[in-house]
Amino acid sequence: MDPRITLVTLGVADVARASAFYERLGFQRSAAGNEHVAFFQLGPMVLSVFGQHDLIEDACLPADQAPRPGGITLAHNVDSPEAVDRVLAEAVAAGATLLKPGRTVFWGGYSGYFADPDGHPWEVAHNPFFPLDAAGQLRLPD
Amino acid sequence: MDPRITLVTLGVADVARASAFYERLGFQRSAAGNEHVAFFQLGPMVLSVFGQHDLIEDACLPADQAPRPGGITLAHNVDSPEAVDRVLAEAVAAGATLLKPGRTVFWGGYSGYFADPDGHPWEVAHNPFFPLDAAGQLRLPD
Repeated sequence: MDPRITLVTLGVADVARASAFYERLGFQRSAAGNEHVAFFQLGPMVLSVFGQHDLIEDACLPADQAPRPGGITLAHNVDSPEAVDRVLAEAVAAGATLLKPGRTVFWGGYSGYFADPDGHPWEVAHNPFFPLDAAGQLRLPD
Repeated sequence: MDPRITLVTLGVADVARASAFYERLGFQRSAAGNEHVAFFQLGPMVLSVFGQHDLIEDACLPADQAPRPGGITLAHNVDSPEAVDRVLAEAVAAGATLLKPGRTVFWGGYSGYFADPDGHPWEVAHNPFFPLDAAGQLRLPD
């Protein structure tokens, strides 16, 4: 298996509501979707929002154990603590819930979290030890 | 907020167990981690595995509602149905649970799912309508 994630899918209660949130955040919805699924090109990968019940059925997950957010978090690294605060504010203005305001963290960076309308947590972080490349993507130190 | 995911973090019961699984899958663990967190460079982004309790605390998630997998799924797109079956078999050999064998799906592709040792679902998919670029990353049609 090659080391690649090509797409991240969020299970959501309402595809239209979730898509509208991500469009307010500045993500561009692709024409490839429909009323059951929306796709957003995020640089080299794709984010999709898909009905949670459809996702449970598609993945053959146990139907009696509804997923609860927080098992997976997504991170958006930026190049300064100020950018962390700015993105958190933008997310809240777009309808996110602030889980944790930006603060200096024990590992030497600065980070905060918001939850999207379905509770999926996003970390917004500045990590001075993990450089971002020209496209803003994360490269681990060698 | 720029359209970017820089890092995906999986909450796990045991960082050593989860890391060993992803190493068996062929992902290379970065020297940047420690016993509490492991990082894997996946092309332009990073996968990390982090203790679920640490993640709940870090993200300030409600402590009384333990996360349950399935709210977010990760996908690994490949270039043929045969490659789907091959990757699913590799994942099972590495210790994954098969959630859904590869099969033709209603949208015209071929896909299956496995769960990692913490239950996080990965879809392995061939989507003839979503081309992969030279690096194997997904590009939505214009």
